[in-house]
Amino acid sequence: MENFHYCAPTRVEFGRGVETLAGELIRGFGGTKALLHYGGGSVVRSGLLDRMIASLEAAGVAHVELGGVVPNPRVSKVREGIELCRREGVDFLLAVGGGSVIDSAKAIGYGLAYDGDVWDLYEHKCAPKGSTPTGCVLTLAATGSEMSDSSVISNEENGKKRGVNNDLCRCRFALLNPELTYTVPAYQTAAGSADIISHTMERYFSHGTSEPTDSLAEALIRTVLEMAPRAIKNPEDYDARAALMWAGSLSHNGLTGCGRGGHGRVGDWACHQLEHELSGMFDVTHGAGLAAIWGAWSRYVMPSDPARFARFARNVMGVDGADDTAAAFAGIEAYERFLREIGMPTNLRELGLTLDEKQLDALAYNCSFQGTRDIGSIRVLEQADMREIYRLAQ
Amino acid sequence: MENFHYCAPTRVEFGRGVETLAGELIRGFGGTKALLHYGGGSVVRSGLLDRMIASLEAAGVAHVELGGVVPNPRVSKVREGIELCRREGVDFLLAVGGGSVIDSAKAIGYGLAYDGDVWDLYEHKCAPKGSTPTGCVLTLAATGSEMSDSSVISNEENGKKRGVNNDLCRCRFALLNPELTYTVPAYQTAAGSADIISHTMERYFSHGTSEPTDSLAEALIRTVLEMAPRAIKNPEDYDARAALMWAGSLSHNGLTGCGRGGHGRVGDWACHQLEHELSGMFDVTHGAGLAAIWGAWSRYVMPSDPARFARFARNVMGVDGADDTAAAFAGIEAYERFLREIGMPTNLRELGLTLDEKQLDALAYNCSFQGTRDIGSIRVLEQADMREIYRLAQ
Repeated sequence: MENFHYCAPTRVEFGRGVETLAGELIRGFGGTKALLHYGGGSVVRSGLLDRMIASLEAAGVAHVELGGVVPNPRVSKVREGIELCRREGVDFLLAVGGGSVIDSAKAIGYGLAYDGDVWDLYEHKCAPKGSTPTGCVLTLAATGSEMSDSSVISNEENGKKRGVNNDLCRCRFALLNPELTYTVPAYQTAAGSADIISHTMERYFSHGTSEPTDSLAEALIRTVLEMAPRAIKNPEDYDARAALMWAGSLSHNGLTGCGRGGHGRVGDWACHQLEHELSGMFDVTHGAGLAAIWGAWSRYVMPSDPARFARFARNVMGVDGADDTAAAFAGIEAYERFLREIGMPTNLRELGLTLDEKQLDALAYNCSFQGTRDIGSIRVLEQADMREIYRLAQ
Repeated sequence: MENFHYCAPTRVEFGRGVETLAGELIRGFGGTKALLHYGGGSVVRSGLLDRMIASLEAAGVAHVELGGVVPNPRVSKVREGIELCRREGVDFLLAVGGGSVIDSAKAIGYGLAYDGDVWDLYEHKCAPKGSTPTGCVLTLAATGSEMSDSSVISNEENGKKRGVNNDLCRCRFALLNPELTYTVPAYQTAAGSADIISHTMERYFSHGTSEPTDSLAEALIRTVLEMAPRAIKNPEDYDARAALMWAGSLSHNGLTGCGRGGHGRVGDWACHQLEHELSGMFDVTHGAGLAAIWGAWSRYVMPSDPARFARFARNVMGVDGADDTAAAFAGIEAYERFLREIGMPTNLRELGLTLDEKQLDALAYNCSFQGTRDIGSIRVLEQADMREIYRLAQ
């Protein structure tokens, strides 16, 4: 087991009706004027926005609104938020939506504590020095941003998608009401589930063992394998929606990485890095992009640690057989079968992308930061490896 | 799944050498003068105390010392600590030891923020209104106090052992170095393991299901079942010691209770309540007391929910068979076998206690708070039930 740091201080209130606690909680954290940050019209149409405003008003918290956050949230919206918050004297950020809205709020928080352009932080020109307290009301089980230290933003000017990981941005509170995800369509439910599993897999697929972390990771993945089809079949299955929501939070709050190694990082993260370039270039749904790249990635790197993939196959996918490599392949196929069953792509074609040679070059060039970085840890990937995985994923 | 609140904000630094971070962390949390709180001579003899003093001095944190905390920590020592801290202007409490030392530090923290006698809080005459920031360096994997909201104190004047649960007392940081548990003797390692498992069981054995919580709980228990014998056989098995330590923290930080029900509480906790009276009256080792009472309790309450005990039997103890009641009994026996294998008692006689009728009466009378409370949730237990379980446990 490797040494580790674990700090997941987010106060979670989970269950029916918890979103009404927002105003009171913001008050408790010293907030007096909140940015109500959200995405599209569904939050308005469902009446959730009105309920949030009522909660703020009841607690005597003033507010300004900024909607229009899109999936793969844009730095332009973040800049707009920073300017609005400065002008209005906002001291608390309330994200109402999915991971895109929360990531956008976290970016605004970083930007408010930074004198330069917020994109500098996402280009890693310097590290965040502070943030503005942030809370969230979650409406989509997927990214785990509600408890994570992560914020990922896309820059529409250069097609780049970049993330910052820092404890500073962790939400002060997360209000998790599974009923708010009843209206999430089947495709988004499936993509969210693929994203949740990926957050655990990214940490799980690295060399060595760490208990109880590995066993917890396996339990979390098995839960999503069981509950995603249930939620897709019956969108108002409360226990299934609740399990996905809580599994999403736990899969990305750091728990599944405790004691795991990596190549100067905790876990592997190659699939996420490979997918970020796809999203940046083609604006695909993040979870679907992860699903589309996973099979090619796993077959490419598996020979570096067949025992690890065999453990996954046996403990998560229920594969039998003594031979590690055979079990590993069977496990990969079994997980791809699950993805297809919930309507997720298992290659780029099924994702709707046909890439030419130049696009393959560009993706690998960008993902390797112009040839200046490697990615992954279970097998360290150079620019040429990245290109090969993109090619195999077609 | 029931609604739940989850907040485990303790910053964890885990691994070899992390205890040296104490001074710097206390500084970061605004501490200028720390109480160095510890138990017996082992912390002194091992040189750990000197290293802690060096860490504090290097960070410019002044300190005063208070040793002598005993297992089942006493309110008299807590009162001594409160007086010392007031006199010396202490603003941070650093517990160096096991759960007893941490619980004692938490009690001092409560007492410093309370005008009356600290025992009032443990008698639940009023709720804690504040605390003094506390951190810990753990030397025993057992109680989970390093991340929990719990503090349990014994009053030697009346033989009572009482607990307070409140987020206010949660440690600001926990420094978890598994190597510091290498010298823990086999019996204490086993008792600690029984305590860790019990913290998960107390939440697991209540009606209904909650995923992923139930699966995580099962994974944690399985980890302890595997690692406790390893650590007993080879006390310097780092991975086994590390797994027990981290499982101990996760078993009592709230994670294994998320979404679980109870009878106005999260989980059951009857075994803990029954054991508290044993410890209060006879000063037994907490984990051993829990082990000694568990078999009688489980056979007494199992008919209220055979399916739950059968799930435990199948998913944790590897029991086969379709009949729930038969599987449940087999699971109880299998867990008792594990306890015996690691040298734990499975009844009061093996714990060294032979109780007469008056003592049985007194234990049930005290445990029911003079007949004013029931305990448990999978089966709610009145005073007469408690007496019967004590009797059956002989």
